[in-house]
Amino acid sequence: MVLKVGVIGTGMIGQDHIRRLTQVLSGVEITAVTDIALDRAQSAAPAGAEVFETPEALIASDKVDAIVICSWGPAHEEQLLTAIAHGKPVFCEKPMVTSEEAALRVMKAEVAFGRRLVQVGFMRRFDADYRRLKAVIDSGTLGAPLLYKSCHRNASVPEGLYTSEMPLNDTLVHDADISRWLLSDEVVGVEVRLPRRSSKGGELRDPHIVLLHCASGAIVDVEISVNIGYGYDIRGEVSCEAGIAALPNRPATVISDAHGYRQALPADWRERFIEAYDQEFREWIVAAGEGTATGPSAWDGYAATLVADAALRAVESGVLEPVTMIEKPALYTDGISLGQALREENA
Amino acid sequence: MVLKVGVIGTGMIGQDHIRRLTQVLSGVEITAVTDIALDRAQSAAPAGAEVFETPEALIASDKVDAIVICSWGPAHEEQLLTAIAHGKPVFCEKPMVTSEEAALRVMKAEVAFGRRLVQVGFMRRFDADYRRLKAVIDSGTLGAPLLYKSCHRNASVPEGLYTSEMPLNDTLVHDADISRWLLSDEVVGVEVRLPRRSSKGGELRDPHIVLLHCASGAIVDVEISVNIGYGYDIRGEVSCEAGIAALPNRPATVISDAHGYRQALPADWRERFIEAYDQEFREWIVAAGEGTATGPSAWDGYAATLVADAALRAVESGVLEPVTMIEKPALYTDGISLGQALREENA
Amino acid sequence: MVLKVGVIGTGMIGQDHIRRLTQVLSGVEITAVTDIALDRAQSAAPAGAEVFETPEALIASDKVDAIVICSWGPAHEEQLLTAIAHGKPVFCEKPMVTSEEAALRVMKAEVAFGRRLVQVGFMRRFDADYRRLKAVIDSGTLGAPLLYKSCHRNASVPEGLYTSEMPLNDTLVHDADISRWLLSDEVVGVEVRLPRRSSKGGELRDPHIVLLHCASGAIVDVEISVNIGYGYDIRGEVSCEAGIAALPNRPATVISDAHGYRQALPADWRERFIEAYDQEFREWIVAAGEGTATGPSAWDGYAATLVADAALRAVESGVLEPVTMIEKPALYTDGISLGQALREENA
Amino acid sequence: MVLKVGVIGTGMIGQDHIRRLTQVLSGVEITAVTDIALDRAQSAAPAGAEVFETPEALIASDKVDAIVICSWGPAHEEQLLTAIAHGKPVFCEKPMVTSEEAALRVMKAEVAFGRRLVQVGFMRRFDADYRRLKAVIDSGTLGAPLLYKSCHRNASVPEGLYTSEMPLNDTLVHDADISRWLLSDEVVGVEVRLPRRSSKGGELRDPHIVLLHCASGAIVDVEISVNIGYGYDIRGEVSCEAGIAALPNRPATVISDAHGYRQALPADWRERFIEAYDQEFREWIVAAGEGTATGPSAWDGYAATLVADAALRAVESGVLEPVTMIEKPALYTDGISLGQALREENA
Repeated sequence: MVLKVGVIGTGMIGQDHIRRLTQVLSGVEITAVTDIALDRAQSAAPAGAEVFETPEALIASDKVDAIVICSWGPAHEEQLLTAIAHGKPVFCEKPMVTSEEAALRVMKAEVAFGRRLVQVGFMRRFDADYRRLKAVIDSGTLGAPLLYKSCHRNASVPEGLYTSEMPLNDTLVHDADISRWLLSDEVVGVEVRLPRRSSKGGELRDPHIVLLHCASGAIVDVEISVNIGYGYDIRGEVSCEAGIAALPNRPATVISDAHGYRQALPADWRERFIEAYDQEFREWIVAAGEGTATGPSAWDGYAATLVADAALRAVESGVLEPVTMIEKPALYTDGISLGQALREENA
Repeated sequence: MVLKVGVIGTGMIGQDHIRRLTQVLSGVEITAVTDIALDRAQSAAPAGAEVFETPEALIASDKVDAIVICSWGPAHEEQLLTAIAHGKPVFCEKPMVTSEEAALRVMKAEVAFGRRLVQVGFMRRFDADYRRLKAVIDSGTLGAPLLYKSCHRNASVPEGLYTSEMPLNDTLVHDADISRWLLSDEVVGVEVRLPRRSSKGGELRDPHIVLLHCASGAIVDVEISVNIGYGYDIRGEVSCEAGIAALPNRPATVISDAHGYRQALPADWRERFIEAYDQEFREWIVAAGEGTATGPSAWDGYAATLVADAALRAVESGVLEPVTMIEKPALYTDGISLGQALREENA
Repeated sequence: MVLKVGVIGTGMIGQDHIRRLTQVLSGVEITAVTDIALDRAQSAAPAGAEVFETPEALIASDKVDAIVICSWGPAHEEQLLTAIAHGKPVFCEKPMVTSEEAALRVMKAEVAFGRRLVQVGFMRRFDADYRRLKAVIDSGTLGAPLLYKSCHRNASVPEGLYTSEMPLNDTLVHDADISRWLLSDEVVGVEVRLPRRSSKGGELRDPHIVLLHCASGAIVDVEISVNIGYGYDIRGEVSCEAGIAALPNRPATVISDAHGYRQALPADWRERFIEAYDQEFREWIVAAGEGTATGPSAWDGYAATLVADAALRAVESGVLEPVTMIEKPALYTDGISLGQALREENA
Repeated sequence: MVLKVGVIGTGMIGQDHIRRLTQVLSGVEITAVTDIALDRAQSAAPAGAEVFETPEALIASDKVDAIVICSWGPAHEEQLLTAIAHGKPVFCEKPMVTSEEAALRVMKAEVAFGRRLVQVGFMRRFDADYRRLKAVIDSGTLGAPLLYKSCHRNASVPEGLYTSEMPLNDTLVHDADISRWLLSDEVVGVEVRLPRRSSKGGELRDPHIVLLHCASGAIVDVEISVNIGYGYDIRGEVSCEAGIAALPNRPATVISDAHGYRQALPADWRERFIEAYDQEFREWIVAAGEGTATGPSAWDGYAATLVADAALRAVESGVLEPVTMIEKPALYTDGISLGQALREENA
């Protein structure tokens, strides 16, 4: 059985997902495409795909089993609610939505529908290195996790276009999501500290130290540096009661030459996470084929929104900003498997 | 366009390739299956695939665009010649054939046909680590390669079932093929030295040191250890005139605990090379869709046969055993691209 | 010329320094020993050394060119002041003194004397790994340091005997001193955060995150874990504007076995810093032979006292506790070399 | 008690040992110096040392307890025999002697004297990395050693001055000695293979592969490259029946910059083995103070001579050249401790 997918938004990331779904992955076919710029949709549409004039028409079409949302963030809420109204599985790029209220509305609709339909694009959860790290933590052999150090270093950002909110709005959300997932925990407060400013970014606030206080008491200590120059360097190390576990270096030829023993780093997030993006969609295709979603949920999109908001407040206040979430709907409870959810729906 | 594939041989490796072609890769469909044990073919056949009674019938069928050979080695020659006779692309697992004469007959048929049809399953050439290593060598920044150390360590082999010829017949061929490819060189002589025997394998000859003398003068120094216990450990390091380049450790969580700082190793070749197998077929699907083959050719299968034969002679003689190849047919010359070959065919 | 040294205090650390000065290092002789327990002094005294009844008598003796203080912390102030009064160089173990006021009195006496006489036992500054790290930072090739991550992990501490003040009073001072030295900076404020408590230490506060805010704006982010079990693991990584520099793994045999690729860690601080202790005294012997001191000064002992005090306050307050130092006396200014100081004295 | 040492030969290595014995180590004093160029001896002599006109006079002098030989290789035999005749411990730089016959004469004299007096300067045995590696092998946890890979890479050698015999005469002897010691084995045969020649050294034979066949059956596979450019890179890895043990990277700051993650290498043997040289003399001082020697013996000097001779023959012959040693005198048997030897002498 082949999953028929409609893609909303054919900018850079949308085009990359179209390539992935047509050239890399099996069990999937792109049957529909739309974009606010219809000519862009036209040129991005693979052979055999229909170009729709509106997201609503695309979502409603019989040609579409499941939807991939790559549109502008502020448009996501309406498109998600429409997909849920049609009971169609939907993959939504980050940010899921752009306000706490919007996130609550999406969750309310999904809970009312009674089954997970929304998967949010936190691709790190599908990365083999992070999965092995989580397996070590979850095995319990190192005891409880107490402290997680996350390091997010970006080679460079375009001066002027990249603003001081972006490290918290666009970058921190990855560290926050992967921390919540690795530690099986929730963020209850956020502090931000600003070290000496790098001269590489002009007036840009960079680097940042962010402390995420978790419900268990564990603290996540995040370094965000966006103009580090030497490459795209993602690090993670968890201190547990009886030992430490950390992400490895990426595989790269070991060269011994006039610069010493050395290994190259990834140039950017595309190179670093290309397999994670593939795997993310591989698992989505299976779940969507079963009429549901897997991996990062609307709850996780909601949490990301709250953490980013709190971090921005914390820059202003200089103190710990609390993160207060609603009670977790049963639909998003880890303990409830997809099978159970489907059984409850059928009961 | 979807490539219709027939699979000959549904043992362990055949079943794994069926899984890969149906569940992992896109652009391909298994339409036909056969095996000397028809009931095994029946149970391995994916939905929609026809079970053929003979390899000849499968190869000849209109349902089959291209063939994957996973049968017993001695059966390969006839199946390859039949596929070439039908002008159909064919992926053939190792060993391509089991004698020098058979290899010459396969190449003769393919050269007469005028276009590459045969791809041999040396999957290491599709491994990202080896590809990066080759890119460093080929870039020339480290100067000419002088010495390549290849290390092939296997956790364990089944006592009794695994004989002393196997490290040379089944294992060395991988090191020989990847060395020829990395160094863009040919093997002209083989020496074997037998260090102190490991007590782990009873009477099994293990480990081996094999020296492959190359046409350029470069020497490949191979360690083969098949009962090393601790994991599947594949190493490669090339000494060039101005520096060294080596395969990296595999990515694995860095754990600090009572055993020190440590990283796990792959358990076996499946874990180590799973992505290489996927990539090998990904590229084969594209080439076969264009009516030809890519990567390791019948020439490479021929070379592997000669090296293994020379290595077995070298164990007996204790001296350098020469490897003498026929003149390389133009079809297998690196300088001739697929495009050129097709143009010549059409001219 | 051989330096005649008197040792005050012959407990564990005193005995270790006696061993070092008699068996490892050249150019030095222990001529005098004292301890509050005279029998312990008697048994610790090397051949030819006189046992003195009081520190004052030892310091005053013609047999003593220079003094090593290994007594109890509260006794240090008086012994330091006596040594300064006699114009004799003195090596003093940590803590230099136990209050800000005492530190000010020691500095006042030394400044009045007009030449450095006091060297404080921060041995990390003599460790080859830290020295290489500082050389990289000081070279300027990586740009200004913005963030330094220091990691101080201890295998285990004795339950009951080890109190919750000790990680800040005895451990943090090393991280603070090495950070000030590496970054050529001063600490102006201290914050402490307490992650989820490790169950290994009962009621012990462990681990700690300490943020040291520096005058330049750089932040030092310290992890202190004292019951990590797996070894003694000291890490340091500085994020600069154009790259990162970090302490390497300690050299240890790379073993590949059933636990993976692995390297052992030092068991404790003795193993980790044994060469640093030797080097510390090697350089002290040279400086003391010239009638002065080198390396960590009374100013550094003063800074350590202030940081530890601020950290203890920060645990209680939960907020940033300022560190306010007096203006730095010219005697302790980096820009003034020993040669200059001696010239000024003689002028 | 201070050991009074006379130094014969004050060239580069002699001056370095004089520096070491006067400035670094304790328990030793240089009381006598000589050289064929007396003015060089004069300027190299430390304060208080007498310059002797001949080695014989120096050895015979009451001012000299023990001798360090740093003269030209061909002069060693006579100086060693003179020292043995006077019953004085002697440290002798490599090569111990320059012919098999000379080695036999030195051993004969020492055996007749009845106690070890000669220590040969194979400093690698005192290197902490090699000692840890040997401890792992000797512990037996990895089973019997089967194969040892030794890698000896030198940054560059002076063209013209450095001849094609030197890699075997001056370099291989280190690999041979450390292999015999690590594996507790003897070399019984030598093969040499010459890979493609590096263009860096003109007509110089470089690199070499040398296979040392050991009495146990273990094989030592040595790479010698003397113009590798990028640094001084010494590697060693032993394959045992149940795992692998290898020398670690040298500690060097881990830098992440435009060249990747990287660590510098030592520039040359002085930097790499400086601590080993210090430790070598530290242990010699203790042994010589007891009237004997420790570490590499005349037997080891004899073995080195035989291996180098066999290697040079193997280059010419292209085949395995046997190494045949006399029966090992009891004086050099590992099982006999110094204590036993002294007891036998006294009996």
